Amino acid sequence: MPNIDINSDLGESFGAWSMGDDAAMLDIVTSANVACGFHAGDPAGILRTVKAAAAKNVAIGAHVSYPDKVGFGRRNMDVTSDELTADVIYQIGSLQGLAKAAGTSVRYVKPHGALYNTIAHDRRQALAVIEAIRAIDPTLVLVALAGSPLIELARSEGLQCIAEAFADRAYTPQGTLVSRREPGAVLHDPVLVAQRMLRLVQDGTIEAIDGSLVRIEADSICVHGDSPSAVEMARELRRILEQADVSLLPFTGVRP
Amino acid sequence: MPNIDINSDLGESFGAWSMGDDAAMLDIVTSANVACGFHAGDPAGILRTVKAAAAKNVAIGAHVSYPDKVGFGRRNMDVTSDELTADVIYQIGSLQGLAKAAGTSVRYVKPHGALYNTIAHDRRQALAVIEAIRAIDPTLVLVALAGSPLIELARSEGLQCIAEAFADRAYTPQGTLVSRREPGAVLHDPVLVAQRMLRLVQDGTIEAIDGSLVRIEADSICVHGDSPSAVEMARELRRILEQADVSLLPFTGVRP
Amino acid sequence: MPNIDINSDLGESFGAWSMGDDAAMLDIVTSANVACGFHAGDPAGILRTVKAAAAKNVAIGAHVSYPDKVGFGRRNMDVTSDELTADVIYQIGSLQGLAKAAGTSVRYVKPHGALYNTIAHDRRQALAVIEAIRAIDPTLVLVALAGSPLIELARSEGLQCIAEAFADRAYTPQGTLVSRREPGAVLHDPVLVAQRMLRLVQDGTIEAIDGSLVRIEADSICVHGDSPSAVEMARELRRILEQADVSLLPFTGVRP
Amino acid sequence: MPNIDINSDLGESFGAWSMGDDAAMLDIVTSANVACGFHAGDPAGILRTVKAAAAKNVAIGAHVSYPDKVGFGRRNMDVTSDELTADVIYQIGSLQGLAKAAGTSVRYVKPHGALYNTIAHDRRQALAVIEAIRAIDPTLVLVALAGSPLIELARSEGLQCIAEAFADRAYTPQGTLVSRREPGAVLHDPVLVAQRMLRLVQDGTIEAIDGSLVRIEADSICVHGDSPSAVEMARELRRILEQADVSLLPFTGVRP
Repeated sequence: MPNIDINSDLGESFGAWSMGDDAAMLDIVTSANVACGFHAGDPAGILRTVKAAAAKNVAIGAHVSYPDKVGFGRRNMDVTSDELTADVIYQIGSLQGLAKAAGTSVRYVKPHGALYNTIAHDRRQALAVIEAIRAIDPTLVLVALAGSPLIELARSEGLQCIAEAFADRAYTPQGTLVSRREPGAVLHDPVLVAQRMLRLVQDGTIEAIDGSLVRIEADSICVHGDSPSAVEMARELRRILEQADVSLLPFTGVRP
Repeated sequence: MPNIDINSDLGESFGAWSMGDDAAMLDIVTSANVACGFHAGDPAGILRTVKAAAAKNVAIGAHVSYPDKVGFGRRNMDVTSDELTADVIYQIGSLQGLAKAAGTSVRYVKPHGALYNTIAHDRRQALAVIEAIRAIDPTLVLVALAGSPLIELARSEGLQCIAEAFADRAYTPQGTLVSRREPGAVLHDPVLVAQRMLRLVQDGTIEAIDGSLVRIEADSICVHGDSPSAVEMARELRRILEQADVSLLPFTGVRP
Repeated sequence: MPNIDINSDLGESFGAWSMGDDAAMLDIVTSANVACGFHAGDPAGILRTVKAAAAKNVAIGAHVSYPDKVGFGRRNMDVTSDELTADVIYQIGSLQGLAKAAGTSVRYVKPHGALYNTIAHDRRQALAVIEAIRAIDPTLVLVALAGSPLIELARSEGLQCIAEAFADRAYTPQGTLVSRREPGAVLHDPVLVAQRMLRLVQDGTIEAIDGSLVRIEADSICVHGDSPSAVEMARELRRILEQADVSLLPFTGVRP
Repeated sequence: MPNIDINSDLGESFGAWSMGDDAAMLDIVTSANVACGFHAGDPAGILRTVKAAAAKNVAIGAHVSYPDKVGFGRRNMDVTSDELTADVIYQIGSLQGLAKAAGTSVRYVKPHGALYNTIAHDRRQALAVIEAIRAIDPTLVLVALAGSPLIELARSEGLQCIAEAFADRAYTPQGTLVSRREPGAVLHDPVLVAQRMLRLVQDGTIEAIDGSLVRIEADSICVHGDSPSAVEMARELRRILEQADVSLLPFTGVRP
């Protein structure tokens, strides 16, 4: 019986500002990428999210970012390697503390936004992130874009690295994401999305934007929860996977 | 042979702005209260301080604060208990992460500035800080003002709590600090300061501002390092204590 | 024909986080209290709000706050007078700049949240805010709580000061707000709220929580827009006032 | 009699952290680039700097930056044009407010750090900054790197633009700055620096790093004040220029 992990970004509220429907998503996902206060999340809100995740046996990952709250971590920043390594350690540590207080622990690290995109190909910044994980806890798993050079790099540096696919994104015949600037890059039909991901789980392939089949190695599927329709799409994905007897399990193998 | 701990605030630089002479102070103190990013300290700078402290066998404590960088944590803030508990856990966790990366660990917690003063007497905020420490690691020691109700409260809640005296401050006959607004509240003579602290270590007493002797229970002495003359005063204190065969040791009993 | 101003807090989004329905509220209010970046509002978002307000002839006020984004300016802070004066000038100046870029100007100042509540009775902080307004532009009007000592103080210091009533709040027989901790402090019935405000405009009285009539001097009514039901209540208020031939006009007398 | 302006970065302290010797530099420079709170400067500190500048008849410019305090505005950020335009307006406005409160006014805009370097050649971000200045006050002068395309661009967009030379930097035969990564890029001899700048003022030329003479069009000289030796170099520059009967005057033509 095949199994797969579903991850999503959570804990992205900030003070009086709320974002996403964490409660709904925690019934859908098996892994929660929890903001650590650099692009989103304040300590009290993060603690609430971590407690809720623990209560629902959802694995917790550190969703680390550049320090840019007003830009939500979506803007590239030309940070030094020392700054980046320390920033990532700081964020993981703070989430570990809050997770410990909630009776659970951090299992993985997933960089957010611009940092995620940059380290997919920028070797210097990638190594700074890898160095951070190795320094604080080398058993933490790094989640990276399926097909990106980061995966090999992290593994060669001794880290466990998990590849993820994006449920609502189109793929090129080469197995990379179609740029958001291209037409058709983002998919909106929940049933189509779910069926594509079911094929990925069962066959290891996705239909690329030109109709060809492309092989994607992915152990986790990333879904969004930042709008009611996004939550609905994620729920449909889970329903169709379960109906096909796919086992939904954190990629770390066991529930926390 | 009597022993005592000497603590000081370190890691208080921020980005391009430097504060204090951490290198000099790490040769003087046995415990370093390291800023955690809320009143001072950026991750890369904190990491440098933590590494330097580890290299010199100085014990590391989390110098937690209200979230107020522009006010340097010196302004009272009417935070809720939930906010305060989560803020303190977050800060301790981040420092634990950086300490782990430096091959060492956090041994104690000392609140900073306005938070320090407030929880000395404000039971609600004190309990929120105690709750934070218990939630993340109940073996962490809380450092508090000698003579403050916080000490009994923390102990009754199951925490280890260490009292500290301030080297350069005058005391009332009741064993409390003379307010900074009063004349004579702050002492400037390094030799006098050192001799007062030597008596404290040897006899458990300090000469109060009215000339009477007051009993002070303190296991640590707080010194400053934010100016060349402050560093000089701390150095003189250490010299005179060592000359009198006082053993300088972190209050946690062992060096890290 | 009586006239009245309706004001509300706008521009309170921050980066990727949205708050309130500015577009809807700008069709209802005559004055917009625009966040200046200290409790809410980023420059690009503030500029959009200011442009929209200008397009709808809504008067613009600076909604100044303590520097506390994560606490949304709702937590008391023990700032010095110099800090507070400079913080208020900075915020007014930044909004004046954005207003100028939008072809309009700032007409008044309304302190936000904890600062609003504090200066209603704290003379030291009140004087620091008054000093800021006098220093940057003494023609700016200060909006204050009806019945608060701040009104007399501001006028005695040479400022124009406008009193405001809160549409959805119960009043004591003394004309002060019933504390939010008391039952019945917040009103939820849009029609009742609108009728109370109509009486205020026509007779200068509000029915207090004990059923007595209390005289309230107010030239503006504060409404909320942070939820669909709040927007609905504000819309109903405007409808009933217009139906009663009350002229809705910024308290500054003329539309921008 | 030739004249020249000398400018320097001031107001770069932040809360409890001080940077530079503003008092000393205000006796040397004719124009002060004052931080606006995005890379440095808190409102109370900025106000003190602006008052001191006004008292010494030093012209005030807005030293605008990316929003990056921990990185001191030295890290490139991939901001959108709308964000950048609004950020610059916000900063200029806040400084205008503080300048007004100090009885003076802002005369020019000089981008700081990474933003300065980026807009010297990045047309998109340059246009966003130009748009900001035009929107808030088209009479403000933009200060730019001598020889950079920004100068022509700003002028073609209708702005006054002043070119500046760097006193302590080596130049290529093409009139551009030698990269800091190259040997000899930064000059340390105060007398040599002063003589180079005197030649620039008198002849419009600088000796390039290969010994050739290069023509530089510059109406202002940038000096540093962030260390005692930097202050000494600036003082020597002023002394030698005055000795040669060069008139030191803000490029805006008149003292404020």
